[in-house]
Amino acid sequence: MEGSPVSGRIDLRIDGAIARLTIAHPGKLNAMSRPMWRELALAVASLADRPALRAVVVAGEGNHFCAGGDISEYPDFRFDEAALRDFHEREVWGGLQALLNCDLPLIAQIAGHCMGAGVEIASCCDLRVAGVSARFGAPIARLGFPMAPREVELVARETGLATAREMLLQAAVIDAPTLKARGFLHAVVPDDTVADEAATRAWRVTELSPLAARLNKRTLRALVQGARPDELLAQAYAYADHPEHREGIDAFLNKRPPVF
Amino acid sequence: MEGSPVSGRIDLRIDGAIARLTIAHPGKLNAMSRPMWRELALAVASLADRPALRAVVVAGEGNHFCAGGDISEYPDFRFDEAALRDFHEREVWGGLQALLNCDLPLIAQIAGHCMGAGVEIASCCDLRVAGVSARFGAPIARLGFPMAPREVELVARETGLATAREMLLQAAVIDAPTLKARGFLHAVVPDDTVADEAATRAWRVTELSPLAARLNKRTLRALVQGARPDELLAQAYAYADHPEHREGIDAFLNKRPPVF
Amino acid sequence: MEGSPVSGRIDLRIDGAIARLTIAHPGKLNAMSRPMWRELALAVASLADRPALRAVVVAGEGNHFCAGGDISEYPDFRFDEAALRDFHEREVWGGLQALLNCDLPLIAQIAGHCMGAGVEIASCCDLRVAGVSARFGAPIARLGFPMAPREVELVARETGLATAREMLLQAAVIDAPTLKARGFLHAVVPDDTVADEAATRAWRVTELSPLAARLNKRTLRALVQGARPDELLAQAYAYADHPEHREGIDAFLNKRPPVF
Repeated sequence: MEGSPVSGRIDLRIDGAIARLTIAHPGKLNAMSRPMWRELALAVASLADRPALRAVVVAGEGNHFCAGGDISEYPDFRFDEAALRDFHEREVWGGLQALLNCDLPLIAQIAGHCMGAGVEIASCCDLRVAGVSARFGAPIARLGFPMAPREVELVARETGLATAREMLLQAAVIDAPTLKARGFLHAVVPDDTVADEAATRAWRVTELSPLAARLNKRTLRALVQGARPDELLAQAYAYADHPEHREGIDAFLNKRPPVF
Repeated sequence: MEGSPVSGRIDLRIDGAIARLTIAHPGKLNAMSRPMWRELALAVASLADRPALRAVVVAGEGNHFCAGGDISEYPDFRFDEAALRDFHEREVWGGLQALLNCDLPLIAQIAGHCMGAGVEIASCCDLRVAGVSARFGAPIARLGFPMAPREVELVARETGLATAREMLLQAAVIDAPTLKARGFLHAVVPDDTVADEAATRAWRVTELSPLAARLNKRTLRALVQGARPDELLAQAYAYADHPEHREGIDAFLNKRPPVF
Repeated sequence: MEGSPVSGRIDLRIDGAIARLTIAHPGKLNAMSRPMWRELALAVASLADRPALRAVVVAGEGNHFCAGGDISEYPDFRFDEAALRDFHEREVWGGLQALLNCDLPLIAQIAGHCMGAGVEIASCCDLRVAGVSARFGAPIARLGFPMAPREVELVARETGLATAREMLLQAAVIDAPTLKARGFLHAVVPDDTVADEAATRAWRVTELSPLAARLNKRTLRALVQGARPDELLAQAYAYADHPEHREGIDAFLNKRPPVF
């Protein structure tokens, strides 16, 4: 779970019920290198082994979230079709899919640059809070290449078609208030409080039913992957007798806080 | 069409071309009880027998729209899988599906609490106007259970994925101006004018072609249920010779108001 | 490519890498006549023969974008089912589909009235800029008829379900700031600068990789037509060895502007 300092790393720290994933690539605005994508997949997969976890904050080290891919690596592999496919389908998608498959609520804490890979990672999160000066885009049309299909689908679904087109076709850089108005960001706060905002939201998640979170995430995931609701009914009510279900309703009726 | 006062009721009143459905559960912020879901389905179905109707306003009695489900009923049935499935799939979905299948434009007039079942009922309406102090959420993660799949699909489609996640994973309560900015609400007005706003919009609907409304609603319903547009073409132009079609165009060309 | 002045025309002008399509129907607020729909399809198809093109601005002549269909033609054909179907499926959809199938970024420059056919044409564009006093709607419920299924799908997808319902079921006319807030418009500017705004955006597109634009548009088109991302992978990385890909990355790494 430890990358070379040269090529960046994904830090994972656990603080009680909250995990903190940090994208760290000093001197490169936390650009994602190939080792970092692989580390991201492993780090997120490892969360499943920690049943005490209830929420995950995804952040960048220092004053930026993630400026995109590590372009210095690109000449080594991007001009060969098989290697390029392997990079996008196995490394990049491996990391993003790990996030998408995570049953814990993911909170993106976004400061500074959130570009390309940064927008994709943020798009995998359930809740997104940003500092007011954060800036978003996917200006790869300047780099001469398109976004991969799975990544387009993810970004267009989460940011909206209009924003995806503006990012991809115009290499637009969009500010945080605009993306709050368009419904991508849940909150925009002063830059020096974005960590507090993310922590507060993570804390609130930890007081709620983990069962409900897990099942709601599974339903939402299946729906965005194209399932029809009636295909999800077989297991939809298996939670009926679950202790959290009983506790939540009992607590409400007895006017006490639930303990999940 | 009449429920016990103890468990709430759905009032249906007809005023010319406009029907008014009122969710009424005094002392419980109009929470939906099981009898009310069944009454809702019957009341909406009965509208099809009244060809003079052109629009429906859906409101709550007094100062609230609907605070959710009637939790006092829950211990009686929710912990048994079959009973829980029956509740969601037959009672709740029966009421919501009746609204979704209604060919008349539905206008939600939203005041005060609009939570859980309230958000679901509002999500079935075509137009949504709210008082500025109305508050929205689906904080069932506090009650220890997830939203049912059909209900998630409905709420996520209408409120947007980001809002659905915030409601479900964070038990967030969201204000009316935010939901107007995110495109769920069509208008937010001072609390004491929300009934007027809904009535004005209903009145405007009554001056338009009922044929157009019915066919547009059918097309939109089929599309959100997953139909491809080319599957809808067989009957798409059967209205060609309809009197309303002739009247609308004739009125326009003769610079007079149409009479539908 | 030249229509009778009586029934309006579509002007196509080429200025270097930028094409300008102008909807022109003097005295009728640029309403689309049947010949204009056919001209539109031909004009857009002809762009494919001009490899030097990089962006297209779609505008209306004078102070309006397009006020809808040319209703004076309607009595001649709309009341016959076969003729009505032919109009929508062949003429209207032929024009819209040509725009949707265009691989060049399309920028809608919207002033004044943008109604019915105008909203549909704008919905086919990738980027949409409007003057602050532009007004949008599809008030055909006043004309006694519904929107055709393919057109509903297009408009609902691009403007959002809530806006589509408001336009179709309430014959609402919506202002530009509201449609910017709802994410349909990318920019709203003073009326006398809308042409400059569109030109600036077109110019920015011309500096980016045409390969990236073409492939991104194809991916987005396939996705909105219902393809799953994994169905798009076979050809997704065929660009690996393309000169634009090499140029973009080389330029970045050498800190120089790319030349595409």
